[in-house]
Amino acid sequence: MTPNDTYTRLANNHISVDCVVMGWDGERLSVLLVSRHGEGEEYSDMKLPGSLIYQDEDLDQAAARVLKELTGLENAGLRQYKAYGSKNRTKDPRDVIWLERAQKIHVERIVTIAYIAFVKLDRSVTGCLDGYNALWRPVDEVGPLAFDHNLILSEALGQMRTMASADPALLFDLLPRKFTLAQMRTLFETVYDRKVDVRNFHKKVGAMTYVVPLDEYQQGVAHRAARFYKFDRKAYNRQRR
Amino acid sequence: MTPNDTYTRLANNHISVDCVVMGWDGERLSVLLVSRHGEGEEYSDMKLPGSLIYQDEDLDQAAARVLKELTGLENAGLRQYKAYGSKNRTKDPRDVIWLERAQKIHVERIVTIAYIAFVKLDRSVTGCLDGYNALWRPVDEVGPLAFDHNLILSEALGQMRTMASADPALLFDLLPRKFTLAQMRTLFETVYDRKVDVRNFHKKVGAMTYVVPLDEYQQGVAHRAARFYKFDRKAYNRQRR
Repeated sequence: MTPNDTYTRLANNHISVDCVVMGWDGERLSVLLVSRHGEGEEYSDMKLPGSLIYQDEDLDQAAARVLKELTGLENAGLRQYKAYGSKNRTKDPRDVIWLERAQKIHVERIVTIAYIAFVKLDRSVTGCLDGYNALWRPVDEVGPLAFDHNLILSEALGQMRTMASADPALLFDLLPRKFTLAQMRTLFETVYDRKVDVRNFHKKVGAMTYVVPLDEYQQGVAHRAARFYKFDRKAYNRQRR
Repeated sequence: MTPNDTYTRLANNHISVDCVVMGWDGERLSVLLVSRHGEGEEYSDMKLPGSLIYQDEDLDQAAARVLKELTGLENAGLRQYKAYGSKNRTKDPRDVIWLERAQKIHVERIVTIAYIAFVKLDRSVTGCLDGYNALWRPVDEVGPLAFDHNLILSEALGQMRTMASADPALLFDLLPRKFTLAQMRTLFETVYDRKVDVRNFHKKVGAMTYVVPLDEYQQGVAHRAARFYKFDRKAYNRQRR
């Protein structure tokens, strides 16, 4: 192969990071998306928060920077989980045009490194979006996204299951600081996509020394007020050791 | 930011794949490495099998192609596990010079996608290396490697543990088709880096319906001949369901 052949065959690559940030509002799993607007042609759609990396930053730094720039969210605990590099990622001309206009570069191929994070949907997280084109959308109401972001999101859900199986503490990142067992059970049902028997669930939780009952109960509810629990990370680490 | 600033800040990226292929010879864990020779300056060292991706191939295709081109090994069952993109990956001028000469391109930054695979060190795998600058080296005898390949290798060992915890079937990819319980125990001790009590281990294996005793015993050994076992994937899938 001549030098020229090699050069032609090598990809003109750009590298981006994309962030799948999951939040839980007590009932449903949501994902953080940003709006994208087309100029000239009229369209407006959504994508995962993501952008190209800079020369002077590492991948993890790029993911944290991009998430903050696009959504205001910081310290989300982003973890890298997969690189997406199909040559078909940029097959939709709309995506390429949008990106070339936004970044003012010629784009052929973009390999993106996907990050995942789990946050509590409390005021610190929902309030930070003010002034950004970002919003939380329930995972089961997400429509068509730009690039291959629907694929990235669906694989992120599988990744969440794998990560939670290896380290259940992760699910408590999603739950409020004080939660009811009903909330905890609903989250488990959502993450593992299956019904959980209430009695069995309470028995299992009873064996978790790190799920600690509080002397606090729900207030102003029509049904019988449920007790609040909290997650004790030190006890968790002891039990898991 | 002006277009020019953006252009300057964006990375001149190349994307490579690197393969960590682990093999087990019955006693020790080995990794597949390729030799690298410097021209002019006199040196010769080792690296993981890896190279830049082509424009017309996906990441998985690139990993399979590169592994075959450099080592002759096919169908290794490569799985992507992490992207490495530190700007310090190319801080050693020797690595940059070597790569620019090999690929005849100007290299600034390379993000590499790491793949991992587990193979039986039988004749089909050791024989395929003939004619290639490739060799199996015990993991605990690996010296300094090119780029950040020592980091990639050490994280691959952690990744192997995580993957084996989630799906123990993976360890049987490493064991010979017929294995003794001593071999199986040694492998477990190596992967999890801790001593395993023999009696407890035999008890645990007794509960694994997918580890099936054969009517075959070791031959020509000085000590008492050990029985052979085989892995039954169907029984494994049933038990794990």
